[in-house]
Amino acid sequence: MATKAPRRTAQRILDASLALFNRFGEPNVSTTLISSELNISPGNLYYHFPAKEELVNALFDRYENDLAPLLAAATDIKNIEDAWFFIHSLFEIVWAYRFLYRDLNDLLSRNRLLESNTKDVLLHKTSAFKSLLQGLELSNALSLTAEDRHSCAVHMVVLLTWWLSYEYVRDPRNALENVNAEKSVLKGAVQVLRLLLPYLELKEREHLHVLLKAYDSNRSAV
Amino acid sequence: MATKAPRRTAQRILDASLALFNRFGEPNVSTTLISSELNISPGNLYYHFPAKEELVNALFDRYENDLAPLLAAATDIKNIEDAWFFIHSLFEIVWAYRFLYRDLNDLLSRNRLLESNTKDVLLHKTSAFKSLLQGLELSNALSLTAEDRHSCAVHMVVLLTWWLSYEYVRDPRNALENVNAEKSVLKGAVQVLRLLLPYLELKEREHLHVLLKAYDSNRSAV
Repeated sequence: MATKAPRRTAQRILDASLALFNRFGEPNVSTTLISSELNISPGNLYYHFPAKEELVNALFDRYENDLAPLLAAATDIKNIEDAWFFIHSLFEIVWAYRFLYRDLNDLLSRNRLLESNTKDVLLHKTSAFKSLLQGLELSNALSLTAEDRHSCAVHMVVLLTWWLSYEYVRDPRNALENVNAEKSVLKGAVQVLRLLLPYLELKEREHLHVLLKAYDSNRSAV
Repeated sequence: MATKAPRRTAQRILDASLALFNRFGEPNVSTTLISSELNISPGNLYYHFPAKEELVNALFDRYENDLAPLLAAATDIKNIEDAWFFIHSLFEIVWAYRFLYRDLNDLLSRNRLLESNTKDVLLHKTSAFKSLLQGLELSNALSLTAEDRHSCAVHMVVLLTWWLSYEYVRDPRNALENVNAEKSVLKGAVQVLRLLLPYLELKEREHLHVLLKAYDSNRSAV
C-alpha cells in the first residue's frame, strides 16, 4: 500500500506561521511562539527560516502563486456570473493571507522585498480588473470610456485590498476571526461588484440584482 | 503694547509629535525622540503626557475636532462644485493626520479609546457622504436608489480612508512625504468624485468633466 510522504517541516512551519500571523498580526508573533506552537526546537525553526522576515517572504511567495493563475483567468470573463465568481475567489485569497493587509504599511517599511512585490501585486490586480472590464465590454455586458475603465479598476483594487481593514475598524474584535470568513468574503465581493452596477447593460444589471438579492436573503437567514 | 502669549508647551509637544508620527510612523517614534526634537527634558514631556498613548489620543481629539465642523457642512452641499470642495477639504484633514491611517490596525489593537473612536469617525464620515448624496439628489444633480446611496457612501468612505495607503504601496518612499501633499490630496479627491460620475445628471456630469479636465492639465503642467 502506498503511503503519503509526511508533510515537510518547512511546509508545516509556514502553515502554522500563517495561522498565527492572521490571528494575532505579524508584529505580535515571535519565532519562539511559532516553534512552541509546532513543538519543535527554535534551532529546528532557525534551520529552515533563519529570520522571521524569511517566513514572511515565503508566505508572500505562496500568496503570489495562489493569485497568479486566478488573475490570469480575468481575460476569460464574459458575464456578470463569471465576474462574481472571479471577485469572490480573489477575496478568498486575500482573506487567507489577511495578515499582509492588516499590517501592510508596517511590513513594507521593514522589508525591501515586500516593498517591491506588494507594489507589483497591486499593479497585476489593476490590470486583471481592466481585463475583466474589457471582457464584459466585448460581450456587451457593459460600456465604459477608457478613462472610466481605468478609474473603475482603481476603485476595485482599493476596495479589494482594504475592504478587510474597513471591516476591522467596524468590528476590531470579531471581523477578522475565522468564524467570520464566509461573511466577510461575501460582503467584500458584493461591494466590489456594486461598483459595476451603474455601467452594466440592462440585462446584466438585472442579473446582478438577482444575485445580490439572493445574497441579501441568504444573509438575513443566517 | 499687547504681546502674544507664548504657545503652550503641550501644544508644541503635540505639533512636534504629529510631524514625527507622520514622517516616520507612530511605532517608530519614541518619547525620547520627541523630547530631544523639542529640546525639552523627558521629565517635562512626561509631565504633560505621561505615556505615548496619551499623545496619540490628544492628536486623535484634534483630528475629530477638525473633522466635526466639516462633516456637519455635508448637509449644505447642492452641486458638484460644493462636493469637490467638501471632499478636497476632507482629504486635507486626512493628510494632516495621515499617521493614523498608516498604522491604523496596529494602533487600534493597542489602544481601546482609539478602537471605539475610529469606528465612530468612520460612521460619521459615512453619514456625511449620505447627506452629500441626498443634497445632490434634492437639487436634482443626481439620482440614486436608497440601496445605491448607501453602497456609494461606503465606497466613498473606503476610498477616503485608504487612498493614502494605496498611494503608499505604489511609492513607499515618496508618496506620504510633505512635498507630495498637494498632489496626493488632489488625486484622492478626484478618485472619490469619480465614484459619482455615473449617477450624475447630464449638466452636473459635464461640469465634473470640466473640473477633472482642469485637474488633468494642471497635473501635466507640473
